[in-house]
Amino acid sequence: MLRGPFLDRNWMGQNPDYDKSDIIMLGLPFDGTVSYRSGSRFAPEQIRLASWGLEEYSPRFNKFLGDVNFHDAGDLEFPLGNTYKTLEVIEKNVEDIYKDGKRVFGIGGEHLVTLPEITAVSKFFNNLAIVHFDAHTDLREEYLGEEMSHSAVIRHASKIVGAKNIKQIGIRSGMKEEFEFMKEHNTLAHKYSDLDVLKDKKIFVTVDLDVLDTSIMPGTGTPEVGGLEFNELMGWFEYLKNFDIVGADVVELAPDYDASGASTAVATKVIRELLMIM
Amino acid sequence: MLRGPFLDRNWMGQNPDYDKSDIIMLGLPFDGTVSYRSGSRFAPEQIRLASWGLEEYSPRFNKFLGDVNFHDAGDLEFPLGNTYKTLEVIEKNVEDIYKDGKRVFGIGGEHLVTLPEITAVSKFFNNLAIVHFDAHTDLREEYLGEEMSHSAVIRHASKIVGAKNIKQIGIRSGMKEEFEFMKEHNTLAHKYSDLDVLKDKKIFVTVDLDVLDTSIMPGTGTPEVGGLEFNELMGWFEYLKNFDIVGADVVELAPDYDASGASTAVATKVIRELLMIM
Amino acid sequence: MLRGPFLDRNWMGQNPDYDKSDIIMLGLPFDGTVSYRSGSRFAPEQIRLASWGLEEYSPRFNKFLGDVNFHDAGDLEFPLGNTYKTLEVIEKNVEDIYKDGKRVFGIGGEHLVTLPEITAVSKFFNNLAIVHFDAHTDLREEYLGEEMSHSAVIRHASKIVGAKNIKQIGIRSGMKEEFEFMKEHNTLAHKYSDLDVLKDKKIFVTVDLDVLDTSIMPGTGTPEVGGLEFNELMGWFEYLKNFDIVGADVVELAPDYDASGASTAVATKVIRELLMIM
Amino acid sequence: MLRGPFLDRNWMGQNPDYDKSDIIMLGLPFDGTVSYRSGSRFAPEQIRLASWGLEEYSPRFNKFLGDVNFHDAGDLEFPLGNTYKTLEVIEKNVEDIYKDGKRVFGIGGEHLVTLPEITAVSKFFNNLAIVHFDAHTDLREEYLGEEMSHSAVIRHASKIVGAKNIKQIGIRSGMKEEFEFMKEHNTLAHKYSDLDVLKDKKIFVTVDLDVLDTSIMPGTGTPEVGGLEFNELMGWFEYLKNFDIVGADVVELAPDYDASGASTAVATKVIRELLMIM
Amino acid sequence: MLRGPFLDRNWMGQNPDYDKSDIIMLGLPFDGTVSYRSGSRFAPEQIRLASWGLEEYSPRFNKFLGDVNFHDAGDLEFPLGNTYKTLEVIEKNVEDIYKDGKRVFGIGGEHLVTLPEITAVSKFFNNLAIVHFDAHTDLREEYLGEEMSHSAVIRHASKIVGAKNIKQIGIRSGMKEEFEFMKEHNTLAHKYSDLDVLKDKKIFVTVDLDVLDTSIMPGTGTPEVGGLEFNELMGWFEYLKNFDIVGADVVELAPDYDASGASTAVATKVIRELLMIM
Amino acid sequence: MLRGPFLDRNWMGQNPDYDKSDIIMLGLPFDGTVSYRSGSRFAPEQIRLASWGLEEYSPRFNKFLGDVNFHDAGDLEFPLGNTYKTLEVIEKNVEDIYKDGKRVFGIGGEHLVTLPEITAVSKFFNNLAIVHFDAHTDLREEYLGEEMSHSAVIRHASKIVGAKNIKQIGIRSGMKEEFEFMKEHNTLAHKYSDLDVLKDKKIFVTVDLDVLDTSIMPGTGTPEVGGLEFNELMGWFEYLKNFDIVGADVVELAPDYDASGASTAVATKVIRELLMIM
Repeated sequence: MLRGPFLDRNWMGQNPDYDKSDIIMLGLPFDGTVSYRSGSRFAPEQIRLASWGLEEYSPRFNKFLGDVNFHDAGDLEFPLGNTYKTLEVIEKNVEDIYKDGKRVFGIGGEHLVTLPEITAVSKFFNNLAIVHFDAHTDLREEYLGEEMSHSAVIRHASKIVGAKNIKQIGIRSGMKEEFEFMKEHNTLAHKYSDLDVLKDKKIFVTVDLDVLDTSIMPGTGTPEVGGLEFNELMGWFEYLKNFDIVGADVVELAPDYDASGASTAVATKVIRELLMIM
Repeated sequence: MLRGPFLDRNWMGQNPDYDKSDIIMLGLPFDGTVSYRSGSRFAPEQIRLASWGLEEYSPRFNKFLGDVNFHDAGDLEFPLGNTYKTLEVIEKNVEDIYKDGKRVFGIGGEHLVTLPEITAVSKFFNNLAIVHFDAHTDLREEYLGEEMSHSAVIRHASKIVGAKNIKQIGIRSGMKEEFEFMKEHNTLAHKYSDLDVLKDKKIFVTVDLDVLDTSIMPGTGTPEVGGLEFNELMGWFEYLKNFDIVGADVVELAPDYDASGASTAVATKVIRELLMIM
Repeated sequence: MLRGPFLDRNWMGQNPDYDKSDIIMLGLPFDGTVSYRSGSRFAPEQIRLASWGLEEYSPRFNKFLGDVNFHDAGDLEFPLGNTYKTLEVIEKNVEDIYKDGKRVFGIGGEHLVTLPEITAVSKFFNNLAIVHFDAHTDLREEYLGEEMSHSAVIRHASKIVGAKNIKQIGIRSGMKEEFEFMKEHNTLAHKYSDLDVLKDKKIFVTVDLDVLDTSIMPGTGTPEVGGLEFNELMGWFEYLKNFDIVGADVVELAPDYDASGASTAVATKVIRELLMIM
Repeated sequence: MLRGPFLDRNWMGQNPDYDKSDIIMLGLPFDGTVSYRSGSRFAPEQIRLASWGLEEYSPRFNKFLGDVNFHDAGDLEFPLGNTYKTLEVIEKNVEDIYKDGKRVFGIGGEHLVTLPEITAVSKFFNNLAIVHFDAHTDLREEYLGEEMSHSAVIRHASKIVGAKNIKQIGIRSGMKEEFEFMKEHNTLAHKYSDLDVLKDKKIFVTVDLDVLDTSIMPGTGTPEVGGLEFNELMGWFEYLKNFDIVGADVVELAPDYDASGASTAVATKVIRELLMIM
Repeated sequence: MLRGPFLDRNWMGQNPDYDKSDIIMLGLPFDGTVSYRSGSRFAPEQIRLASWGLEEYSPRFNKFLGDVNFHDAGDLEFPLGNTYKTLEVIEKNVEDIYKDGKRVFGIGGEHLVTLPEITAVSKFFNNLAIVHFDAHTDLREEYLGEEMSHSAVIRHASKIVGAKNIKQIGIRSGMKEEFEFMKEHNTLAHKYSDLDVLKDKKIFVTVDLDVLDTSIMPGTGTPEVGGLEFNELMGWFEYLKNFDIVGADVVELAPDYDASGASTAVATKVIRELLMIM
Repeated sequence: MLRGPFLDRNWMGQNPDYDKSDIIMLGLPFDGTVSYRSGSRFAPEQIRLASWGLEEYSPRFNKFLGDVNFHDAGDLEFPLGNTYKTLEVIEKNVEDIYKDGKRVFGIGGEHLVTLPEITAVSKFFNNLAIVHFDAHTDLREEYLGEEMSHSAVIRHASKIVGAKNIKQIGIRSGMKEEFEFMKEHNTLAHKYSDLDVLKDKKIFVTVDLDVLDTSIMPGTGTPEVGGLEFNELMGWFEYLKNFDIVGADVVELAPDYDASGASTAVATKVIRELLMIM
């Protein structure tokens, strides 16, 4: 046998044993309904490689990745061009995770992957709520006649968990009807305490990386300027530390659109810090 | 009113009048079933801009774009993530073109767009044949369980026109079964005269730009080295000048993958020269 | 005829009818006097394509692009290498716009295009003032012996409208003499109310995109770090909402220098929001 | 447990069982002595990902990757900045491979990695010869005073196997002394039959990817125009099919220098085809 | 002879006469121990070119580059792959500078170049202190078994000047042990006045450009989000104006990783402003 | 003083002494009349840096750069946006070179720089001829109304040396009138011996790098596929070795359009080999 040493090819700091892990990281390389620029299908693999440019230790949370006890399960394989079958594959695998008493940490892919995650998780918790970081409302009923679109994911999710159980952060783009929906259901969180109504809920945190400013995250499908600074996002994460997070995902990195690799590095750190609060 | 002068925003050398044109150029910005890297949805618009870096005159064919009498009809709009509806929109519009006594020149998008074009054109000619330039056989029956895939487009087309009416040029990648299909049906053309069996047919020419070597065409979904030089492709075009071409398309440019713009420039010149022989 | 649907190839939300529009958007693809990196000649066409990645609705101004009633007139064509003739073409077309009782919205190109715009507009208003967003003073008398330079545009404009009718925002680079000019004429605006002296004037707003920080706008000729955040720029726009803006332009995007497309996306949103306050 | 399906994260077509494999693919991510542009340290991981854009079937050799029976052992981990320790780690692991009765297939990294491979392999065969594809002679005694340099690798190797047991292909750059060395020892192969003197030897094939023309392989440390076309390289591979190849490597891809990904795709196909002839 | 005029090929505003200069700018193109992405070897030459995109006048410090009286000595040449000899070359040249009664301004290259600079400078001042701007602690004892690593540079420097004479700004990544070292020795400066303990010391300022946020500085080896804005860094520079700075360097620009050139432009301005306070 | 060693910042292998040199290399960073993509203004400085990635020895010509005895005079400085003054500066400096009994080797910049070179050189030789490598005829009388355009440079030059004293190689794009001009004056050289009519002339060799195929030279203003391979260009150079070359230039590299650096590397080698035959 070879004596090595070998570079580890899984996410830095992961637990190699599925059974002994609390959180299951699952790559979801799907970008089939993206309305502008696609390419998020390549995010999970590039993020995994970039994780080795990070440290395992988070000074902000004074904690190690090893403390998180997560397992990198790899990336699901999807039938290209078939949105419905893809969503089904995701839903079933996420169900497996919760049947095993664990929590999911999805790595998109596009934002539509969140819908089957929510669908699956909602079968295990009757008081599920969503904390949604995004530049876009994602509250359309359909896009160009298609119901299953990344622009509609939160609207569809609201039918599962109820609009009152959704809080949105960083939103700065959408149709007028969507902003009215946000107003009607009071989903927009302006300050930390706006999240307090979800204190007793089981929380699913979904982070569309375009919630960050284009300066930090040019490598995404629909870059939208005027967004959160990284440390602002971290402020929200710190506040969420005291909530009961039962699942999470980070979506919409399109790594090929930022040849500098900085967007991928940022995405990777967002994931590390979000793992820290789960 | 403004006195200008203004830059023309259509394809260089086009005829602005649909009714008086012989050939209708149609942008087909669809890339939903791409198995590796997508982005060909942005090709039609970038090719149109790049056309202004060309000359209208082709020294090879001693002919002007103006002599071709083609009209740039713009780019179709598709429902994202819905492959079947997209194919339907293409098929109907291409039918319109032939009902009007004209010929189509499609600008992909991915290679699957060729299928509804062929379907439509075959309704108007009972002796349709296909000349297929590509690195890949595109002869799968399905890809990851999906029948409608850019990897299966020529297989499906063969069911419409008959495998004996297909000639393939530049093929260098595929599954063993696909190469056996090629052998069985003698579809691979090695030299110009291999095309002569199609002399009395109505020809649809479909050019997947990855038929060109990766050195010339890095900006494509699945770059495949060892391909044709540009002047080799032009040799085939010159030979095809004497065939009865009733439709054509050029597909699979992914412009964002070649930031130098060279791939887009090449695609644009392929289109100009292909127009010259129609 | 073709049934479509077709993608619109004009700026999103424009009014296709020149005569019925209030504002005329005019592409000015000139970059002949740029002192460092050129390429802004490609901005108007790429911005137009990128506009389709935006929403028509601006949550900040609670208004639609359709409410603005602007017409996308396309891009002027210039004689390459001849600065003076280019400026003449711009001046004449802008005059046309004001003769027709409309206002111009120029899309550069480099900053020198603002000079003929100002020249033309000043013929229609005797109390014209300029609000100038920029990293650079642009107050040189000449650059390397050339009077007509993008580094001199505001100095020349000051001779038309008077230095006291110019307010500059975001300036952080220039020669000592230029900073002394700014001091002498009190042109630098530090806070919103510094603009109030222009309250009764007709305002031309000119935005050199390098006023934004390099992190947001790397795709520009002379990136200058330490600039405005996007939301800071928007704060100034909100304040200007109550001024009488009779013309505007947004200049100096060099799209090829930011292959991520983020700079182009930002420029496009700056334009959308500036349209909202006119 | 999760039902998947999951994407395979090893090289396409590999045998997951080290013990039952004939060839061991070993990533060697070292680029510490590169004289111009480094970055080949990232090649093994990007090549592995890109392998999934290939087909398992090689039409040229009418053979499947699965037929090759190779195992992807992963990438060695090296002490950064310490050239000597790095070479030692490589040498020991390659020795392990031959002790286990297998052959190595190294994926660089820079060309100096070939030296410890040769050193190790030479311990198992007393009639080792080298077939060296490269743009550069790599025959310096030292570079800027350093003996251990990628520019000196073949000179050092010649001391192990003897200069007469080296054949070089594609060489087009070097110092005069190096060309004289080549002449003196008759190492340059112009035509296939020049290799015949090695017919009874055990062959180690080392491919510096810059042997290919810059048009095909811009993503390398020292691109050198005027090189082999891909099909020319394949011609040599076909001829080598009848030689007794006991080890091989492919080095000097610098993936970040070709954002189009084409260089990585080419490197991956070179590897597939070289595997086919072993 | 040629009448010119010629473009100056040295740093803008430098004094061409070494003997009459106070500060010697020294290019240090070494990147041999970089743990993630290398390429900082190309920084000195690209920064020099980019300096001509700046103005000589700094509005912030109301001072000209010409006032600084610095000489651009060019870039040292190093033996590739030999870390120890490289460090020796740097140390000797920096000694030369101080023997001549001048101060060094190093342009990296990677951060390890600071160690021989400090070693040399410490021979001339017995009360040397370090102000260290960085995202990373750089306080490891070794990295992958190597003592000489850019990750260990400040730890080694602390042995020369004493940990109590080090102040660190912007640190946000490292191992737990490193953060404990920082705590134990109270090296982290949170506010300007934390630097006051160094008021009577001779200060060496070392700026690892990744102290800036990734949005401003994607072109660096290990981009680390959540960093300083440019104007925050300038605030620290303004405070340092009143300290006795006897040497400085700016390191870790990897220009090829930011094709937009913005990172290089930022690095260049950091250097200009740091020169202003010396 | 500093002991160094320092990297040389001039062209590799140059003679530092103008007076003792035979050939004067002159950077001509002008791109003001470019019809499509500009940026060749940055070529001279990037080529100079890239020269250090070459060897001084040319195996093809068995000769060293040192044998050529050329001096790198640096890059001229031009008034931006003023074409006529720029041409005048070039003409005067080139005259200086010939007054000093030397020959020019211009590094563009765009192709229009050749006109003042020819003008100057023609004052010293009454039997001047031009060998013109290019994709484009450059035989227009004007472009968009401008006489001074890079598209017209050879037409204007023909008025100085006579159309019969011009031979063109690699031409593949132009207007019909231009091709007719070529025919009428028999300027197109198809085979080496077509150059023999110029055997007794003094030759100026002008190489527009887009004569090379786009695969080799994507980093140019108007990439034109179907061009020469590098070794084909070298074949012409070898034939020209026996001609009396009194001046030369290499133009139209736009380095920023090829982030891989390969185009710059190719341009640099073209220059090295062209120097070898002078």
